[in-house]
Amino acid sequence: MSTIKKDYVRPLNVKTGRVDMNHGAGGRAATQLIEELFLPAFDNPFLRQGHDGAALPLPAAGRLVVATDAHVISPLFFPGGDIGCLSVHGTVNDVAMNGATPLYLSASFILEEGFPLADLKRIVDSMGAAAREAGVSIVTGDTKVVEKGKGDGVFISTTGVGVAAPGVDTSGANARPGDVILVSGTLGEHGVAVLSQRESLAFETAIVSDTAALHALVADMLAALPGREGDLHVLRDPTRGGLATTLNEIARQSGVGMLLWEADIPVLPQVDAACELLGLDPLYVANEGKLVAICAPEAADAVLAAMRAHPLGAHAARIGAVTEDPHRFVQMATKLGGRRVVDWLSGEQLPRIC
Amino acid sequence: MSTIKKDYVRPLNVKTGRVDMNHGAGGRAATQLIEELFLPAFDNPFLRQGHDGAALPLPAAGRLVVATDAHVISPLFFPGGDIGCLSVHGTVNDVAMNGATPLYLSASFILEEGFPLADLKRIVDSMGAAAREAGVSIVTGDTKVVEKGKGDGVFISTTGVGVAAPGVDTSGANARPGDVILVSGTLGEHGVAVLSQRESLAFETAIVSDTAALHALVADMLAALPGREGDLHVLRDPTRGGLATTLNEIARQSGVGMLLWEADIPVLPQVDAACELLGLDPLYVANEGKLVAICAPEAADAVLAAMRAHPLGAHAARIGAVTEDPHRFVQMATKLGGRRVVDWLSGEQLPRIC
Repeated sequence: MSTIKKDYVRPLNVKTGRVDMNHGAGGRAATQLIEELFLPAFDNPFLRQGHDGAALPLPAAGRLVVATDAHVISPLFFPGGDIGCLSVHGTVNDVAMNGATPLYLSASFILEEGFPLADLKRIVDSMGAAAREAGVSIVTGDTKVVEKGKGDGVFISTTGVGVAAPGVDTSGANARPGDVILVSGTLGEHGVAVLSQRESLAFETAIVSDTAALHALVADMLAALPGREGDLHVLRDPTRGGLATTLNEIARQSGVGMLLWEADIPVLPQVDAACELLGLDPLYVANEGKLVAICAPEAADAVLAAMRAHPLGAHAARIGAVTEDPHRFVQMATKLGGRRVVDWLSGEQLPRIC
Repeated sequence: MSTIKKDYVRPLNVKTGRVDMNHGAGGRAATQLIEELFLPAFDNPFLRQGHDGAALPLPAAGRLVVATDAHVISPLFFPGGDIGCLSVHGTVNDVAMNGATPLYLSASFILEEGFPLADLKRIVDSMGAAAREAGVSIVTGDTKVVEKGKGDGVFISTTGVGVAAPGVDTSGANARPGDVILVSGTLGEHGVAVLSQRESLAFETAIVSDTAALHALVADMLAALPGREGDLHVLRDPTRGGLATTLNEIARQSGVGMLLWEADIPVLPQVDAACELLGLDPLYVANEGKLVAICAPEAADAVLAAMRAHPLGAHAARIGAVTEDPHRFVQMATKLGGRRVVDWLSGEQLPRIC
């Protein structure tokens, strides 16, 4: 007791060190992990409060929006991103799909014993960069460690808090017959990029994930409808299960049918080719930087123009219309002139794509 | 296309069924799991919005509080509770330790392929009951499935959103020399209950987890200080690492020392006995229904009386005082009249206790 208590004997070894059970035990090792690895990556005044939670300014008006996402993607690093930036984009997008401005994120980590600290640092730095780029603060978090063989490297659950302006309501139950269906760009890149990495497939043309934060695009779309934001009826990001599953969900919630025009659905040729090789339909493949918008017909031109003016909506397209249909079928007019039902994903699937 | 599309062929088999990869694929099986298992347990109008997130009324004034917790406890069921109610209590308490009223919870589930649906239902029902009892709504969620051997049954991350009244600031940096240290009851039950279940130990007197939501207790404590809520300087729940770790964290954040009186620290005799058998110190064992309060000396009587008047604070006690100490040591005057340093948990630990 005659010497000053040193907080840590050695700095964290982020070059060759590994996660051990002590990093999840709530003691000195856990604090060191937070202070030397998480805090520098996420740094913001709310996180520096150092409480079991963060106290934040309350938005002035509107509705509070809360969304959460568990991320278990495998592999952790893939062309165009990693689980870190994905865990920010995924939740920012869920908040944005409520027509809201994302403000704060929380992050909870479940680490597997033995996971390399260098990989963890790379993931956490990627999260921090994605959050800064999106203008949101990671304000609080939690870290747990499970024994080797009881997890899979790292799982990240993020929760986003945002605020939606009054008059904005983009729920999946709002689609009405006659509405126009828009997508913000080409479909299927994320799923194909992850799968090709997982299966060690090399395509001639590299396919990279489209992972991106969409809230600025959404803000531009709402700004294109001043005083009639309510004409933007539905917003959704077609992640797991792809466009087909998302549209079936909306059809079910709204009690409507849909008719898509296959020729107008944008898919990159290399994604089309890879899907053929892999036995996938791009309509069922996950996206992480695309949105579906359903709007009143009189709003469609303005919304589409706003989308195309944004870098993340440059290839936006009008792909179909909402129909009256008690069966709530999503149908597609094919390129060959036929018509087929685009059913829900049921048996087939791509596990751990996000 | 001549028949009405049935949403599900068969109802979910919650008796003998198991989680499979389809339940995490975002398609029909995932929707069925949500609609037949999660929605009935958590039912509330926000969750029924069915969006990727929830739009909620904004609190009128105060500060927004956000807290998150990953729950990886093993075993999933233990005397006095399970991972379901624990995941509600843990996060409600983190919000409450910010002096806030918890309003909303999000829940993200990472399920292991093959996990029995009957166990999942039991856990989810327990979460729903705990949320209702605490007066909070589980407003949004996410479910992912990982392959057998890549998880451990179920992990649950919950995030809580609450609101703190103006003037309330219970950060760990607020302890001042002269302040009084209070605990709300007996220590160590949660950790000992979980460990005894894990090691299949049977004690003569059953030890059950103290898992409970503490926000109503906190509200009563603040109500005992009308107009001077700021006299309640610090609130913390001593979970992982127990009282010793929590007090060391506060000492470090506030730049103070502490002196505890061992004789005044409440521990059940059976917990004391079990700790001796297991080679544990109850000061380092996790609690899930206890709090530490540090308050101005002139507020201590009122706060202690309010605690004792609440069922969850019936055994509240004054256990020590904050001291001036550049070394930020937590010391203890022992029952034998000596004095020892109560150090951080460093090597020893109880993994996966919450």
